[in-house]
Amino acid sequence: MDFVYGPGKNHLFVPGPVNIPEPVIRAMNRNNEDYRSPAIPALTKTLLEDVKKIFKTTSGTPFLIPTTGTGAWESALTNTLSPGDRIVSFLIGQFSLLWIDQQQRLNFRVDVIESDWGRGADLDALASKLEADRSHTIKAVCIVHNETATGVTSDLAAVRKLLDEYRHPALLLVDGVSSICALDFRMDEWGVDVALTGSQKALSMPTGMGIVCASPKAMEAAKTAKSVRVFFDWNDYLKFYKLGTYWPYTPSIQLLYGLRTALDLLFEEGLDNVIARHSRLGKATRLAVEAWGLKNCTQREEWFSDTVTAVVVPPYINSADVVKRAWTRYNLSLGLGLNKVAGKVFRIGHLGNLNELQLLGCLSGVEMVLKDVGYPVKLGSGVAAAAAYLRNSTPMITSRI
Amino acid sequence: MDFVYGPGKNHLFVPGPVNIPEPVIRAMNRNNEDYRSPAIPALTKTLLEDVKKIFKTTSGTPFLIPTTGTGAWESALTNTLSPGDRIVSFLIGQFSLLWIDQQQRLNFRVDVIESDWGRGADLDALASKLEADRSHTIKAVCIVHNETATGVTSDLAAVRKLLDEYRHPALLLVDGVSSICALDFRMDEWGVDVALTGSQKALSMPTGMGIVCASPKAMEAAKTAKSVRVFFDWNDYLKFYKLGTYWPYTPSIQLLYGLRTALDLLFEEGLDNVIARHSRLGKATRLAVEAWGLKNCTQREEWFSDTVTAVVVPPYINSADVVKRAWTRYNLSLGLGLNKVAGKVFRIGHLGNLNELQLLGCLSGVEMVLKDVGYPVKLGSGVAAAAAYLRNSTPMITSRI
Amino acid sequence: MDFVYGPGKNHLFVPGPVNIPEPVIRAMNRNNEDYRSPAIPALTKTLLEDVKKIFKTTSGTPFLIPTTGTGAWESALTNTLSPGDRIVSFLIGQFSLLWIDQQQRLNFRVDVIESDWGRGADLDALASKLEADRSHTIKAVCIVHNETATGVTSDLAAVRKLLDEYRHPALLLVDGVSSICALDFRMDEWGVDVALTGSQKALSMPTGMGIVCASPKAMEAAKTAKSVRVFFDWNDYLKFYKLGTYWPYTPSIQLLYGLRTALDLLFEEGLDNVIARHSRLGKATRLAVEAWGLKNCTQREEWFSDTVTAVVVPPYINSADVVKRAWTRYNLSLGLGLNKVAGKVFRIGHLGNLNELQLLGCLSGVEMVLKDVGYPVKLGSGVAAAAAYLRNSTPMITSRI
Amino acid sequence: MDFVYGPGKNHLFVPGPVNIPEPVIRAMNRNNEDYRSPAIPALTKTLLEDVKKIFKTTSGTPFLIPTTGTGAWESALTNTLSPGDRIVSFLIGQFSLLWIDQQQRLNFRVDVIESDWGRGADLDALASKLEADRSHTIKAVCIVHNETATGVTSDLAAVRKLLDEYRHPALLLVDGVSSICALDFRMDEWGVDVALTGSQKALSMPTGMGIVCASPKAMEAAKTAKSVRVFFDWNDYLKFYKLGTYWPYTPSIQLLYGLRTALDLLFEEGLDNVIARHSRLGKATRLAVEAWGLKNCTQREEWFSDTVTAVVVPPYINSADVVKRAWTRYNLSLGLGLNKVAGKVFRIGHLGNLNELQLLGCLSGVEMVLKDVGYPVKLGSGVAAAAAYLRNSTPMITSRI
Repeated sequence: MDFVYGPGKNHLFVPGPVNIPEPVIRAMNRNNEDYRSPAIPALTKTLLEDVKKIFKTTSGTPFLIPTTGTGAWESALTNTLSPGDRIVSFLIGQFSLLWIDQQQRLNFRVDVIESDWGRGADLDALASKLEADRSHTIKAVCIVHNETATGVTSDLAAVRKLLDEYRHPALLLVDGVSSICALDFRMDEWGVDVALTGSQKALSMPTGMGIVCASPKAMEAAKTAKSVRVFFDWNDYLKFYKLGTYWPYTPSIQLLYGLRTALDLLFEEGLDNVIARHSRLGKATRLAVEAWGLKNCTQREEWFSDTVTAVVVPPYINSADVVKRAWTRYNLSLGLGLNKVAGKVFRIGHLGNLNELQLLGCLSGVEMVLKDVGYPVKLGSGVAAAAAYLRNSTPMITSRI
Repeated sequence: MDFVYGPGKNHLFVPGPVNIPEPVIRAMNRNNEDYRSPAIPALTKTLLEDVKKIFKTTSGTPFLIPTTGTGAWESALTNTLSPGDRIVSFLIGQFSLLWIDQQQRLNFRVDVIESDWGRGADLDALASKLEADRSHTIKAVCIVHNETATGVTSDLAAVRKLLDEYRHPALLLVDGVSSICALDFRMDEWGVDVALTGSQKALSMPTGMGIVCASPKAMEAAKTAKSVRVFFDWNDYLKFYKLGTYWPYTPSIQLLYGLRTALDLLFEEGLDNVIARHSRLGKATRLAVEAWGLKNCTQREEWFSDTVTAVVVPPYINSADVVKRAWTRYNLSLGLGLNKVAGKVFRIGHLGNLNELQLLGCLSGVEMVLKDVGYPVKLGSGVAAAAAYLRNSTPMITSRI
Repeated sequence: MDFVYGPGKNHLFVPGPVNIPEPVIRAMNRNNEDYRSPAIPALTKTLLEDVKKIFKTTSGTPFLIPTTGTGAWESALTNTLSPGDRIVSFLIGQFSLLWIDQQQRLNFRVDVIESDWGRGADLDALASKLEADRSHTIKAVCIVHNETATGVTSDLAAVRKLLDEYRHPALLLVDGVSSICALDFRMDEWGVDVALTGSQKALSMPTGMGIVCASPKAMEAAKTAKSVRVFFDWNDYLKFYKLGTYWPYTPSIQLLYGLRTALDLLFEEGLDNVIARHSRLGKATRLAVEAWGLKNCTQREEWFSDTVTAVVVPPYINSADVVKRAWTRYNLSLGLGLNKVAGKVFRIGHLGNLNELQLLGCLSGVEMVLKDVGYPVKLGSGVAAAAAYLRNSTPMITSRI
Repeated sequence: MDFVYGPGKNHLFVPGPVNIPEPVIRAMNRNNEDYRSPAIPALTKTLLEDVKKIFKTTSGTPFLIPTTGTGAWESALTNTLSPGDRIVSFLIGQFSLLWIDQQQRLNFRVDVIESDWGRGADLDALASKLEADRSHTIKAVCIVHNETATGVTSDLAAVRKLLDEYRHPALLLVDGVSSICALDFRMDEWGVDVALTGSQKALSMPTGMGIVCASPKAMEAAKTAKSVRVFFDWNDYLKFYKLGTYWPYTPSIQLLYGLRTALDLLFEEGLDNVIARHSRLGKATRLAVEAWGLKNCTQREEWFSDTVTAVVVPPYINSADVVKRAWTRYNLSLGLGLNKVAGKVFRIGHLGNLNELQLLGCLSGVEMVLKDVGYPVKLGSGVAAAAAYLRNSTPMITSRI
């Protein structure tokens, strides 16, 4: 039994955890297995090989860690850096804030580049810092590719360009939690040194697997990094990779089979088609927000996120009421505004295994909720705007033509 | 793996089989059990008691038969009638047609009262026949409560009233396949002698269980009915009911546990609330159809169905293209037009475990499809009309207030 | 929650319903689908083609009927015979008795050849009848390949031989419920005209699908058979086979996907290996029974069944106590003795997706139960006898070598 | 599909991950949910309250951490200790070794008390150290309650007695990974300061949840502990406990529902009955080993483990061959010998949701394997010895009497 039952499907539009497709739920519907039998290493081997594709890397080393995104962050930092290391980190929303908090608690000297919430990473500020840092005291640049709290995507290619321009050897560590498998992400091309995501995001699995990928440069850094680490230590994994048994401790058998199927589904649809689908759904959502006469929390088009849209409500409305109403009346789960934007924005997550009609159902629900809480939206207006765009951009389902 | 995969949820809006709620899917996710152990009879006993509530009967005898609706029909007929018996049967659409075909093949003399497809049962014609039948040669009146092919609900209370008015002893046999658990249905109050449904309809389970309920009068008729029957013979069930083992042959363990949960969910929501929800979704759908400028196949409001709406397309459109397009482009499953209305109508099933936003997602999909196939619908118009109504009529989810 | 929970796995050793392998449970763990979409016919087509392999037929026409074994019986009889037709039927146990009862109630003139329970079909008696029947009044010979109540396998090849010897045109109708997919079964080679099984037997699925296969001769007979039939009418299926939509009424989507996986598993193991596995487990069980000093209900080795063993208990023990004790103390489900052998035998089902150690666990459980109810068995004796044989005959698991 | 399929059930007898009962698998068979909705905190609240019962604590503070046992270790250490702290740790097998390795890498000064593998914690050595430590430089005593590598249970009550005797304030940190929910464990009575387990052990769930419980004294220590920690920081949990939202980062929805059911099953059986069942299965296993003429790796009865038995093979046999053979021929998963006892022992895990007949099936399998690899075991001997004991000690299943 669900803990709080309501008729029909729950419409899950938080930006994570997201909807799990039935084939993945099925794949995970199983008893435990001995992870030291030949079967699990054989399965793991295919996973490690295939998971690199979602990072668009051929040279990276992937780690499938039984943890969350927060743990994946810790893994990225502690394996590549030493206490006292100077790092540059962008603060643009709640998740970048939390990562910075972690960086500080792990005893790095964090040079924070702050932007207004709703803006992307301030690359001019980065340029200045890089230019000034002739002695290369900056050991890493840490950036959240897609800030889930504000729906802001920063330009990773531009970050790389700056690093190259200034011939700066700092590592580029990227939180791809709400981007990888959904937004264009090119680890090798953009020279990302550590990229990471969590299973419950665009991979559309349950929470519990932090997926981290390290460049050869990051692997080299790991050899000398002095941060204390055991559970998150890549070396323990590498030791078992060499042995061919792969696991320093017990993995979740269910998540391994789930990942196998999640990857199969991604590859069947085609990663580029998956990214195009996210682009389509993101754009459709923004068109609806515009039609409602509401503002996107994201201040410029260049930063618009195709995985989450933070919608600014008028001052006389508390966005928490929107979220509460959606859940208690329409079985619709929306994201709350967090921290600085609490009460001011609600978020529509449109990432993972999702299609057009699911989104349109959500948008029609948001319209009703907005009216419920006193915002004079014209019912159907957002849906119409989104549908007009989607009708022209949605491809046929390949397997059904 | 699904046989023909598309990203996101399949939007299942055929009028059966319908969406299965997660708790029922979970309940059925199990190994087989020995059906002769004490556990299964104990479970069955609660099911037989509780299933009577969905028929609103206290005096009826229920049968849970491993079959489909077609088998449930056969069970109703062969257990109560003898070859050559005269029966009156209403032909108003494809499913009443199929039932009549079965009645004829089972060697009853079927007095067919035909109406245009889109109209309900012709009760005047029934009145005439009953009046004329002073010698009570009519042994049964057979009626499909809700004709799934045209979205027409006939008035069972009125049928009962006529039978009473003419003091006619004919049995009243009712196909409640797309009505029971969704529309107002009162077996005892309306003097229904045999009522039946299938598990894959408003009960929101997989196909495989025909649920039949017989009044004391029907049970009495079963003692003398001469139709040949073995698999469908109620007597075989009664024999095992008396023994307390309940099953003349192996039941599906999974469907029994599924039914237990399906009933629990119905009772948790409240059967009257479930019926109100169907009424709400039905009305919302009709408002959308109206907003699109399309006609409902059902010719009069009194016959409007709250479980399925058959939408008439303009003559220059083939409704099969609507259905095909919905499935191949939007992962939306709509019902085809059948037989006489093939190509002319498509059907939106809105029965079972379904909520407002699921329906609105479907309606927005239908709008896009209509435009795709050349009908000049205003995108958002149907959704707006439906949402305006739903926003005023949808209650809070009780468990979440 | 299970209805009557006990810790650990339930040891399911009734001769049906049997253990469902995890991959089949997984495959069935899904929402409903529109059975009129292109996906389900495409899936059905592969099933109809592949299901013929389990019958070892290339010329047969298969039917996947939403029913149980009892319904499959009715399908076999009513589609090929006319009321009043003379048929010869062997009575050797409870299931052949029930089939004969059905035959009589369907108004065939049944010429019963009875044997003691524990003996196979009396082929001498058949020979006499065939010889005497110069005018070919016998329209069908009905035989249960494996009588589940007594664990008796009759010799189908010998039946065919007799029919050929006497050049008798009678149809050969075979109940293969507890044989097909487990025992050697050769529909084409043995000239079986209708063969049938149920999904919950050696196919190791839930109950709910009757699988019937008809020879060209049976299909020809169906054209003139006058038995009344609608739900079970093959013609309705054939009509939809021709249309390529396959289903005259709604199938269970879950069982279709389950059958797909069940067949995949059978073919992966290899049908002949599956049959060899059953032979191995049957033999091991009989060795245990012998070691316990108990008698097999089956009177001669030629009739020994490799899918179920009926064990005769000493007169001072009620076999129902064995079954009850097994379930209430050891979570072991054994089969009761039925009808004539009630109280006298208990049954060990060893069919379906089962391996050596599962059987040995069961046998050790039976030993404890026997001791519990007062039979002086030497603990470990049966297990030892079975294991000695199994150790020499069990092959390596192909996929793991 | 399983990655390496074999017919029938996999017999899973590694000491973790263990068999998941069907009700838990069912409970986890679900889509994601928004963990910030009111439903998940409400569920979490019941879990935090109920999980204390498995530790037998009323004063402890539990943490449900998305990690494995290794992460739970790290959580216990880093939250209560500061780098450079002196701790006493017992080395008696592979898992205590790994924990010590972690302790050292986390920069504690570890005073290792080593015993032969197969012996329990050397409490005399502890006594000496405590006696000598007048200035209380020892900040913590770390002990693995049940060493999974050797099947050795150490006496926690005796450790507490020593600490009390010497009035030593050191924290008592206990790895209860293969003991809690299976062996007698009394956090409050024994003054355990941090106890921990993993979901995939006696709780019989998938891997992925580290369950840690801290005494008030440990909570106090956490306020001043200087070990660097973020992901594992209890303070982050406490902050969200106070807010009533409970989660500092995304939990696995599936594991939460799984834990709810796992606890329900434990309480339905009764925790003391669960422990008695483990005692029964442990004893039965040891009787079998004795009957086979083999030695238990555990050197004294006082250390015998009721959750895992490490069986010593004769020198002419490689225990890895036993494990390999079991898996490739009998679908039986046994535990390998690790590190010092690699090749010398194989392990039978008998923990979690397991019953008598499952164990007996395993034991019969081990007998066949032993014979396969050249050890002259008498088939049936171990099964007989185990069954003789089990028959006298196994209770009726309460729900079935």
